[in-house]
Amino acid sequence: MNYRMVSTTVGKILLAEAILLLLPLGVGVYYKEGMATMAAFLITIALLLVCGLLLEIKKPRHRRMYAREGFMIVAISWVLISLFGALPFVISGTIPDFADAFFETVSGFTTTGATALPEIESLPKSMLFWRSFTHWVGGMGILVFVLAFLPQSENQSTMIMRAEVPGPTKGKLVSKAMVTARILYAIYFVLTVAEIVLLLLGGMPLFDAVTNAFSTAGTGGFSVRNASIAAYDSLYADVVISVFMILFGVNFNLYYLLLLRQFGRVFKSEELRWYLGTIAFSTLVIAVNILPLYGRFTTALRYAGFQVSSVITTTGFATADYTQWPILSQVVLLGLFCIGACAGSTGGGFKVERLMVLCKTVVAQIKKAINGRAVVPVKVDGRMVDSNYIRGVLTYLGAYVAMVFVGIFLICFDDVTMEEAIGGVLTCFNNVGPSFGRMSPVGNFGILTSFSKYVLSFLMLAGRLEIYPMLILFYYKAWKRRN
Amino acid sequence: MNYRMVSTTVGKILLAEAILLLLPLGVGVYYKEGMATMAAFLITIALLLVCGLLLEIKKPRHRRMYAREGFMIVAISWVLISLFGALPFVISGTIPDFADAFFETVSGFTTTGATALPEIESLPKSMLFWRSFTHWVGGMGILVFVLAFLPQSENQSTMIMRAEVPGPTKGKLVSKAMVTARILYAIYFVLTVAEIVLLLLGGMPLFDAVTNAFSTAGTGGFSVRNASIAAYDSLYADVVISVFMILFGVNFNLYYLLLLRQFGRVFKSEELRWYLGTIAFSTLVIAVNILPLYGRFTTALRYAGFQVSSVITTTGFATADYTQWPILSQVVLLGLFCIGACAGSTGGGFKVERLMVLCKTVVAQIKKAINGRAVVPVKVDGRMVDSNYIRGVLTYLGAYVAMVFVGIFLICFDDVTMEEAIGGVLTCFNNVGPSFGRMSPVGNFGILTSFSKYVLSFLMLAGRLEIYPMLILFYYKAWKRRN
Repeated sequence: MNYRMVSTTVGKILLAEAILLLLPLGVGVYYKEGMATMAAFLITIALLLVCGLLLEIKKPRHRRMYAREGFMIVAISWVLISLFGALPFVISGTIPDFADAFFETVSGFTTTGATALPEIESLPKSMLFWRSFTHWVGGMGILVFVLAFLPQSENQSTMIMRAEVPGPTKGKLVSKAMVTARILYAIYFVLTVAEIVLLLLGGMPLFDAVTNAFSTAGTGGFSVRNASIAAYDSLYADVVISVFMILFGVNFNLYYLLLLRQFGRVFKSEELRWYLGTIAFSTLVIAVNILPLYGRFTTALRYAGFQVSSVITTTGFATADYTQWPILSQVVLLGLFCIGACAGSTGGGFKVERLMVLCKTVVAQIKKAINGRAVVPVKVDGRMVDSNYIRGVLTYLGAYVAMVFVGIFLICFDDVTMEEAIGGVLTCFNNVGPSFGRMSPVGNFGILTSFSKYVLSFLMLAGRLEIYPMLILFYYKAWKRRN
Repeated sequence: MNYRMVSTTVGKILLAEAILLLLPLGVGVYYKEGMATMAAFLITIALLLVCGLLLEIKKPRHRRMYAREGFMIVAISWVLISLFGALPFVISGTIPDFADAFFETVSGFTTTGATALPEIESLPKSMLFWRSFTHWVGGMGILVFVLAFLPQSENQSTMIMRAEVPGPTKGKLVSKAMVTARILYAIYFVLTVAEIVLLLLGGMPLFDAVTNAFSTAGTGGFSVRNASIAAYDSLYADVVISVFMILFGVNFNLYYLLLLRQFGRVFKSEELRWYLGTIAFSTLVIAVNILPLYGRFTTALRYAGFQVSSVITTTGFATADYTQWPILSQVVLLGLFCIGACAGSTGGGFKVERLMVLCKTVVAQIKKAINGRAVVPVKVDGRMVDSNYIRGVLTYLGAYVAMVFVGIFLICFDDVTMEEAIGGVLTCFNNVGPSFGRMSPVGNFGILTSFSKYVLSFLMLAGRLEIYPMLILFYYKAWKRRN
């Protein structure tokens, strides 16, 4: 482990968080909020500056970085930004319990959107803004953010991007990681602004439009209303948000291809087809299933479509309490929890690309079993898939299943039902947000013990960072000094 | 597809089933049961003889057989023996509904032990015997049985054994498949007789001792008492059955090694260690967890040990209604549902060997991620594991997860809770037997619709035959004529 390299990079991340906190502070000033709120942000910023500078100051002797350092930097950074990010809530007394505040912040940065709070409309605007802003920052990744704006060596940037950007393939758009990061953030920014404008046109107040757009963009799910998006009771808002949830769940590489006018490659993307096909199929099944509850097919389609988009992209917004729906619809949604969005999007979950490769590998195995000796290739987008890559996807499934089992086991030390345990773990690990039982869209995670909240926080981080970075923290050999 | 080869082999299997049905017929004669029961068996035997001979009569032109034919023979045979095996129940009026009778028979042959009957003690003895005897036949495999006693070409036998014997590696004990099949059946027979004798020594009636031993040997779980093994309320019986369940969940290759006095290899078997370790750990966790319910630690240990052995070996006997236990214990048992017994045993589930390889592969992946370029080998029993084998295990996991999802989806068309849907699919697919909710050890599957029963029957067969043979039935290319 190149300790100095890790500490300087983590230091930079903390400094970046200090800068990001100026935004909610500004919101607090604008809304003339009390001293307690202002002080909370200022103290946190001060702490971040001190710690960040202390970590950053000692420059590494060797600038060479390996995958190990990349993973470690990402894991440590995400834990630290969540710890510091929780401070404004605790110091201001908005969320007095640290476990709750930490859970809320991890849920924010990991774009989960699960809340420990029974009521949020009474929170200061600056706090609500920070909550939603963590989604936006976490969606594209805070390290990618730092990469985009601070000079790093190319080798260093590549390792960090690999560790933070979700999905099995971590292709850079252009040869330089820093430029890739800038392009990604530019697309992200433009799409977010587009959503804000469209929501404003529909009559949504500015504050709500901005925070909801942040939540949509990061596929987070925190809302500034207790009733989530249902509070606006607007077909227009439902449709705009549904469409943008789906857009933010698409692999961002495809937007870059659109910019390059390579429309053919976009339309031929198998992952995109699987993604949209899954959305269409699930929406239809659920709409038919819930038809008796809503009377009209268009109404059923509206609610089914919103919930399906919300869940497959792992956003977690709600316009209806799906726990009141028939069990078939609930199980379809539970399945979508796990599938998640496309690789290289801001969404969580197992990722459509992995699911696709998995299905194709199983089919290839069956063909192979039938023919005995034949080599059956697995193809994606017309190209043969490398066997190392397949093994990576399959191993990820193994790690995924193992994490789910261990998570459920640990949550069962709490006083929960089996449905709550399974649903709670799947929703947090896949960064969705709402779950079943008392953690339904109208419930919250506040009823759990602090232990459970820390376990779920860990799962949210593991889900967002795709497991390995968080596991490496526990692997003693990874801590071995190298320079 | 070599159709004639498939049909003659399937024909032989049906003839074998006709012979096997003489045993319950004999039991009926011994207990002087009514004409209806006798007639039911005789009609079924007659039908089996006719169909078997018709199928068997046309000898194949080519004797060469490939994996495809092996899979097909196994899948078709298992479906047919279940269809015919259900006839005695239907004809005699014991289980008038065909869906129920088919479910019961599939549950028997696949050694699941899930029942659709609310009450069984009123059934004729011959029917109870047939129910338990299907476990014994299905445990080691009816095709292996035929192999052991009917002359087959070596190539043919090998393909059939590969398709029917559970586990990722299908090593033959000796170079000839027929001799291997005989050795396996001899060990199986001796262990079963040993259990019968021990149960008799404990004062269990002969009929109960034999049927319970059949259920234990096949890791099935059908009992001749409504209260399952709890009916005997005997610590002795509990211990004997617990121990034998564990014994029948061990890879039978190890018993052969014991016979060869290769004790070293047995003790060094990593799969055995993982298996026993999992049993010990789970028993301890559950015993501590249920201690408040039973007062004394030894009592808690007795019930925990029995249930853990019953579930990990996928037997499904019950001495306690674990759905009344704390949620932690229930979740541990649900996890054991999926793990299942050792490869090459009569138990179902994912298999300990696969779990072990999976865990090692994930750890290797983490090590690889840390070191970047290093090749990290996966070792079992000190030997490096082939990468094709690893891919097979991982792909199996993919197919396994896919089957579970599709199964849950289909069951949700029924009027069930989420817990019942998940539990019902996992218990059937892993060939365990009891589940949660209304399918708890004191409940039954009779409440489901016929559609759900057929879905679960398919899952039981898919679980017992390790997925691929059943999937191949649906793959049109596999039906292409070859000779």
